[in-house]
Amino acid sequence: MSKNEAIASFLKRQAGKAQETAGYFADPKLKEECGIFGIIGCEDAGAKIALGLHALQHRGQEAAGIVTFDGDRFYSDKRMGLVADNFSDAKVLNRLKGGSGIGHTRYSTTGETVLRNVQPFFADLDRGGIALAHNGNLTNARSLRKELIRKGCIFQTTSDSEHFVQLAALSRGMSMVDKVIDSLHDVEGAYALCILTQNALIGARDPVGIRPLVLGRLGNAPVLASETCAFDLIGATYERDIHPGEVVVCYADGRVESRQVFSKPDQPRPCLFEMIYFARPNSFIDGKSVYQLRKQLGKQLAKEAPCDADMVSPIPDSGVAAAIGYAQATGLPYEMALIRGHYVGRTFIQPAQSIREAGVKRKHSANAGAIKGKSVVLVDDSLVRGTTSRAIIAMLRKAGAREVHLRIACPPIQHPDYYGIDTPSREELLAATRNTEEMRDILEADSLSFLSLDGMYEAFGKGPRQKDAPAFTDHCFTGDYPTPLTDRDRQSSIAKIEQLSLLAESS
Amino acid sequence: MSKNEAIASFLKRQAGKAQETAGYFADPKLKEECGIFGIIGCEDAGAKIALGLHALQHRGQEAAGIVTFDGDRFYSDKRMGLVADNFSDAKVLNRLKGGSGIGHTRYSTTGETVLRNVQPFFADLDRGGIALAHNGNLTNARSLRKELIRKGCIFQTTSDSEHFVQLAALSRGMSMVDKVIDSLHDVEGAYALCILTQNALIGARDPVGIRPLVLGRLGNAPVLASETCAFDLIGATYERDIHPGEVVVCYADGRVESRQVFSKPDQPRPCLFEMIYFARPNSFIDGKSVYQLRKQLGKQLAKEAPCDADMVSPIPDSGVAAAIGYAQATGLPYEMALIRGHYVGRTFIQPAQSIREAGVKRKHSANAGAIKGKSVVLVDDSLVRGTTSRAIIAMLRKAGAREVHLRIACPPIQHPDYYGIDTPSREELLAATRNTEEMRDILEADSLSFLSLDGMYEAFGKGPRQKDAPAFTDHCFTGDYPTPLTDRDRQSSIAKIEQLSLLAESS
Amino acid sequence: MSKNEAIASFLKRQAGKAQETAGYFADPKLKEECGIFGIIGCEDAGAKIALGLHALQHRGQEAAGIVTFDGDRFYSDKRMGLVADNFSDAKVLNRLKGGSGIGHTRYSTTGETVLRNVQPFFADLDRGGIALAHNGNLTNARSLRKELIRKGCIFQTTSDSEHFVQLAALSRGMSMVDKVIDSLHDVEGAYALCILTQNALIGARDPVGIRPLVLGRLGNAPVLASETCAFDLIGATYERDIHPGEVVVCYADGRVESRQVFSKPDQPRPCLFEMIYFARPNSFIDGKSVYQLRKQLGKQLAKEAPCDADMVSPIPDSGVAAAIGYAQATGLPYEMALIRGHYVGRTFIQPAQSIREAGVKRKHSANAGAIKGKSVVLVDDSLVRGTTSRAIIAMLRKAGAREVHLRIACPPIQHPDYYGIDTPSREELLAATRNTEEMRDILEADSLSFLSLDGMYEAFGKGPRQKDAPAFTDHCFTGDYPTPLTDRDRQSSIAKIEQLSLLAESS
Amino acid sequence: MSKNEAIASFLKRQAGKAQETAGYFADPKLKEECGIFGIIGCEDAGAKIALGLHALQHRGQEAAGIVTFDGDRFYSDKRMGLVADNFSDAKVLNRLKGGSGIGHTRYSTTGETVLRNVQPFFADLDRGGIALAHNGNLTNARSLRKELIRKGCIFQTTSDSEHFVQLAALSRGMSMVDKVIDSLHDVEGAYALCILTQNALIGARDPVGIRPLVLGRLGNAPVLASETCAFDLIGATYERDIHPGEVVVCYADGRVESRQVFSKPDQPRPCLFEMIYFARPNSFIDGKSVYQLRKQLGKQLAKEAPCDADMVSPIPDSGVAAAIGYAQATGLPYEMALIRGHYVGRTFIQPAQSIREAGVKRKHSANAGAIKGKSVVLVDDSLVRGTTSRAIIAMLRKAGAREVHLRIACPPIQHPDYYGIDTPSREELLAATRNTEEMRDILEADSLSFLSLDGMYEAFGKGPRQKDAPAFTDHCFTGDYPTPLTDRDRQSSIAKIEQLSLLAESS
Repeated sequence: MSKNEAIASFLKRQAGKAQETAGYFADPKLKEECGIFGIIGCEDAGAKIALGLHALQHRGQEAAGIVTFDGDRFYSDKRMGLVADNFSDAKVLNRLKGGSGIGHTRYSTTGETVLRNVQPFFADLDRGGIALAHNGNLTNARSLRKELIRKGCIFQTTSDSEHFVQLAALSRGMSMVDKVIDSLHDVEGAYALCILTQNALIGARDPVGIRPLVLGRLGNAPVLASETCAFDLIGATYERDIHPGEVVVCYADGRVESRQVFSKPDQPRPCLFEMIYFARPNSFIDGKSVYQLRKQLGKQLAKEAPCDADMVSPIPDSGVAAAIGYAQATGLPYEMALIRGHYVGRTFIQPAQSIREAGVKRKHSANAGAIKGKSVVLVDDSLVRGTTSRAIIAMLRKAGAREVHLRIACPPIQHPDYYGIDTPSREELLAATRNTEEMRDILEADSLSFLSLDGMYEAFGKGPRQKDAPAFTDHCFTGDYPTPLTDRDRQSSIAKIEQLSLLAESS
Repeated sequence: MSKNEAIASFLKRQAGKAQETAGYFADPKLKEECGIFGIIGCEDAGAKIALGLHALQHRGQEAAGIVTFDGDRFYSDKRMGLVADNFSDAKVLNRLKGGSGIGHTRYSTTGETVLRNVQPFFADLDRGGIALAHNGNLTNARSLRKELIRKGCIFQTTSDSEHFVQLAALSRGMSMVDKVIDSLHDVEGAYALCILTQNALIGARDPVGIRPLVLGRLGNAPVLASETCAFDLIGATYERDIHPGEVVVCYADGRVESRQVFSKPDQPRPCLFEMIYFARPNSFIDGKSVYQLRKQLGKQLAKEAPCDADMVSPIPDSGVAAAIGYAQATGLPYEMALIRGHYVGRTFIQPAQSIREAGVKRKHSANAGAIKGKSVVLVDDSLVRGTTSRAIIAMLRKAGAREVHLRIACPPIQHPDYYGIDTPSREELLAATRNTEEMRDILEADSLSFLSLDGMYEAFGKGPRQKDAPAFTDHCFTGDYPTPLTDRDRQSSIAKIEQLSLLAESS
Repeated sequence: MSKNEAIASFLKRQAGKAQETAGYFADPKLKEECGIFGIIGCEDAGAKIALGLHALQHRGQEAAGIVTFDGDRFYSDKRMGLVADNFSDAKVLNRLKGGSGIGHTRYSTTGETVLRNVQPFFADLDRGGIALAHNGNLTNARSLRKELIRKGCIFQTTSDSEHFVQLAALSRGMSMVDKVIDSLHDVEGAYALCILTQNALIGARDPVGIRPLVLGRLGNAPVLASETCAFDLIGATYERDIHPGEVVVCYADGRVESRQVFSKPDQPRPCLFEMIYFARPNSFIDGKSVYQLRKQLGKQLAKEAPCDADMVSPIPDSGVAAAIGYAQATGLPYEMALIRGHYVGRTFIQPAQSIREAGVKRKHSANAGAIKGKSVVLVDDSLVRGTTSRAIIAMLRKAGAREVHLRIACPPIQHPDYYGIDTPSREELLAATRNTEEMRDILEADSLSFLSLDGMYEAFGKGPRQKDAPAFTDHCFTGDYPTPLTDRDRQSSIAKIEQLSLLAESS
Repeated sequence: MSKNEAIASFLKRQAGKAQETAGYFADPKLKEECGIFGIIGCEDAGAKIALGLHALQHRGQEAAGIVTFDGDRFYSDKRMGLVADNFSDAKVLNRLKGGSGIGHTRYSTTGETVLRNVQPFFADLDRGGIALAHNGNLTNARSLRKELIRKGCIFQTTSDSEHFVQLAALSRGMSMVDKVIDSLHDVEGAYALCILTQNALIGARDPVGIRPLVLGRLGNAPVLASETCAFDLIGATYERDIHPGEVVVCYADGRVESRQVFSKPDQPRPCLFEMIYFARPNSFIDGKSVYQLRKQLGKQLAKEAPCDADMVSPIPDSGVAAAIGYAQATGLPYEMALIRGHYVGRTFIQPAQSIREAGVKRKHSANAGAIKGKSVVLVDDSLVRGTTSRAIIAMLRKAGAREVHLRIACPPIQHPDYYGIDTPSREELLAATRNTEEMRDILEADSLSFLSLDGMYEAFGKGPRQKDAPAFTDHCFTGDYPTPLTDRDRQSSIAKIEQLSLLAESS
């Protein structure tokens, strides 16, 4: 296949895909499934959770929900759309009574999000009420659901997160905590959980710690969140990360009991994409600044793939920290070759043809005043489909850039995720079937370099990668999955759980 | 208590009540809980069900839902509000694919209707999907729910109708029909059911036949409905009433199998209020015209309580048939003393004070041109709280009527219902604690008469009432309940099932 | 043309028309354009106006608006839809501050009603604010608008009612009353007006009194309304009808000044359709009960066209009063051959094909229990397109009626209206091109009779009709128009005023 | 007043203000009133205008409107909210037919924006239709409106922009262009206009060129816009800035006729705030890159007010370009001390108390990982109320910053604007009544410096400022207003035009 044929084939496939998706170029990067948050023993838990979820909004924008408990009843409110649009009104927050509660902000990997799938889920069990919020994805959801239906369970949703609640309902455990712990033994995959009962706020993290969960304090009140940035917004302080395989039970008096449900793994394996892409730069993971970690990636990249150019510029905002690191390491001036639009969250739905073509431009504008006649090093945190990068490079050239060199602050992404990150199919994943030179051809960059796998481990202070005990969940780069993939192994592919239900809802 | 004290006390109690209710004087009569409809083996089942539900709209105006099946998947759509407002758009109906389906139109007896309580309910069972629509009320719902939760069931709703589905899910029955029949053995109370499975449309009626269910045909396709008026609208023909304790299983090829699940009662006892009030005048019950039955009530009333007046007039529209019967029997001219407003369905919600007082007038206007200086016999089908009747009598006098004589075409209502009719509390029920003369005092009518109990049975061709085997469910007049009242007996009052759930939903 | 050809041609034309209209068979009768209401010198004028408009809702259902004045500012609220849906909330009414105000309820004769066309219209003039509500239609609107635009006027709406305000703005009159009176001299056609200024509530009626306007009192506060039924609802008392060509100026202290702006006509000519069809039965026109007038029409009809049948029945509700009159005059029993649906106000918009055919049935159900094997005299107030009557007759036959005899309580309608009634085109108007026998053929009735022109004048106590000085505006029956038709004469047809504007608004 | 008293007084005043405003800290900077856009001679003008307005969204977020012309009729659509939310749907855009049109995006300086005030305004004039979009503010609006009402004009809006249309309607000019030019002679103040007639797209700019307007080409089609960034998004090329006092008439065949309506000023005086704050960094003003102009301000600031610190950081995004300039000039590392939230456009309306305090944090998060123990130079483009800066400085300290030095890349703002920028009252304007040291005390910064007036002129290549012929409109810094202030001089303050209307609309 010649270079031109490769480009034509790439464009055709992407265009087909683009027409299927509602929001054209809406967000070409990987997507996280959820952010979770919980608190107990404070006042106005509802308002605190709303703020916490707002701080975690980047982890899921489709829907959000909050459940609180006031010592007597549980109060639930779930809505499609952004937290600030739905949970900022005092009237709404005042209905969420009580001093403990949990919240969830959701991005769904499947077609349409219906309200009944929005978390937290609630159920009246024998021992009282339970509400649950889950970040992650189970790899035996389909098999498990079939089995539970045979036992007489009626599923309210098509979400794998409901499995925890159904399992707890069937458990013979005498306390709610026991029922919850029971439920963990039947699931496989990745999870961070916030669970609310009448007495306690429970947090749990899967045996190898794929999805993140941190513990903090607001005054004396225990707080759980997916990321530390949620603590900053409500004025809470960070205490520690929940361990892989640990369950913490938090009480209104401030006590936090820890139960190591699964034996501590020799090597925890948190998901690399939290550091590379998902987490907010001002969050800390295991005590380390995400901003500094990303600057480190940029510096390492500068070492591995320097460039003789006039300036360094990020693809904003995702590439900012790495670009600053790259600029500092090389001494090249840091400039804004691209200006980020302020109103891109607002997607042009069902765009008319003439608007569709302006897709990339609405998100980023070339800054002709900065780049005319210049050679530019363009830095981004990762490369997924390549669609946006290709459009941006073309846009920079059209605005007068003499050369555009693309530098990616992580290795090529080649394998799908099954733990709660929405990865495109292999044929859409640019690096899955191409070498660097083929990618450079398609992107029409003057040069292209990725950070090496060992370089990435190095930048994170864990390098080089130990093949037998890697320090991270890194299957997207390596194909090395940290858990069994039961459903995939039995069915050749992870069938969507939606297909198990015969129901198609209109509203 | 003097007459004036009685009136003052009456008004005070009613006013207090009125302020609590959102729609003032919105509907002062008894309320039915539901209308149900099902069809199998036709084209565009969704559109037919929408029409059928529209014809049954008088049985419940709060919400409606439809579930259809197209041989592959079930399609569900449930919405708050009227059928015509929600299910008349071709876009909506086209999404309800397939040739079989069921529908439900709902009036709820409890505070706020939340969407998750709207029927039909759907569940994926081991043997396939099931959808269910229920008219009636269970009298052991609370006890049964507690037991099911202990077994690990998670309830999606606070409606007693979900019990049937949960019981079917737990049943070991090998077929869906067996599972459904299993579920009937654990419930007590009143029910008419339409159930949809992948193979069949199932109809069922409680052992004594309290709630109605009729079978018809649209061409060859079997149809089930609460009333025959639904058949008229879609052009179907009436075949027969489902028997008490009978389950019918209808197939797409037109077959209808009957299974008498409970032994035929010696004496079926359909609810009298269907004939008196709920059913549309153009419906037929057990082959008899409801319009003619009500005219008969009016004629019997004329015999029992004649009146020397200038004219007979109904409270429209509820009293029209009885007033025509009364006028024909007495030879007095039939006139419209009251004009019914066309836009009363539209309630003035949260009315300003000055509007609230105009409540009755918005529903009925006095027709001064017809009544000035005249003595009027006013006929209505029943008397519940007396609030509206009192206001109407005052309005007629103010418009110039010389005398107003009130005639009620059924006996005094003195006992609450537990089978799906929303009866006010004893202290609001005018006849519960007063004799006829005391009621006349409060209503300020020139005379007041009720039809006698035996007269009513007589008018329906079943009289006089056989105390040991009454031909109808008539506890509202007699206190003679046709089934056990398990929850009431254990708990002194039928506690709201909502109180069993710890969840308070905002939306 | 044979009978069958005539029917086929009739059906084809009507079907074509029906597909064009959003609501199939939504309302096959003539339509009034508006109801108006005004009050001054009371408390909470907004709430009173809302009630008054609700009582006038039958005169226009598309939109409603209210303007009040609190001594300082004018408060305006206009909304699409019904009064009760929009103006019953205390929050809405509380924003309409002050003790004087006017309201308008609108049916528009043109395609889409846009909000800017909803009345009352408001303008800041040199001498203060003015708000205006108009019932009727101008016959020189088009010519006048062109002239005003040449002078520099900018029209906010495409409604002819704005002309009054523009003319007042240009007037050199020193007071607001003078400006208003000035405006009346430049318009031709039909109008009843309610006008609000900072000092007064002004009422006006066109020189021959085509459209109605009545004066009443709520306590001491003057009230104006299109019909007396609006007085009943707010508890006001009727005082008198405004005279043709009269302007009344009402003040907050209760004073009502009368100015006869146009010389009193020798013979006022109120529009006959108010008595026959538009006015509510409980309204009084010139002191006469509309209900009794219509019963008179029925009695006269019985005299002119008796029938040997088993029963008399109205097409409800429009034919009720005439049917009662007919039954009383003939001695035949009055029965309900048709049951009116309660939820017909709710149109099935964009109905699916299978629903569309059920159109008539949704509005009226045949009462098989009453008519089986019987010969029925069916009475209605008027016959316009014939579509509904034809469908009803077929429905009655199908439900078992042996014979159906149609009696119409007014003469055949043969000419269009230009004064605010929406008449169908000549080819849709059944009587415009057919004699009685041809119409009977199409309707497939066993017999058909209309009331005679002189018989109608007789029934109203004004007969027989005086050709030189007829007592009513009756051009729809006679072609005798009471005013010049300037626009029609100049342009062969009354072109829609919308066509004068170059603007097409999306929202 | 001691430092602590000064701070307390400052906080009290700001807090009072904050409670009044719906969105707390929603946007503490100055606000522009509008962006305008026009095109003629292309296909699908509606879609192009939507894109153009989206690119100008930063100039006004409250509402947007588009009017197009298709050779036959004008099509108008105006909506509250963002362009992307309202004008991205193909259905909406398809209704905006034709190849020419104008658009407007609005921020209003007054309380509530009502839909009737949303531009473009349309009117049917004697010579045809006219639509107008205006950026700027008139300084004789109130006097002029009074005069026009006396002549019989009826104003549809309370916007001063309608004056142009009313004046054109009254003009005796024989062509639409003549009428438009006539209208310009009666107004005073600032304006850039896009006007659409049936033949032409007209652009106009006030005599000294306060508000901006640029001319471009899309293929052969002339395009007008407030800023060049709108050209980039639709793929048009920049041609030139419209001159002060110039009217350009653009035709569908690509011709652009220029008429210098007012004599060219010796010295044009564009508004400085376009360069400093309003314009997007990728726009060009008079051929100069806004990004480079702002970097120049930062470099000049570094020269005037250097600082011995560990790093330079912007308040993002407003201070980014100046901070890069400052960092390059000083050699200090550029870092992100603050992370900007992605979802701040979404304001927490009516926030609960506990949420309100988190106001600043929702917009910016301190990046503890970058600043712990460091001395930070914080750069912003301007300082208005100081509220946000104060909160940010405190937040940085709390996150561990050792020192915070604030540098402002323009002089202190001390005087209100009357030309379309929403400036706070003198008591809210931090620099209006305080010297630099007092401000530093209140902000609690370690040091504070502003760019000097001459330094700013210098950075823009025009310095030092020529007192007799300054090159910019700079009254906010100097009090030197470039036009008469008729309304202010006559009335002591510019009374809101809203107060001239007696109408208060509910909806």
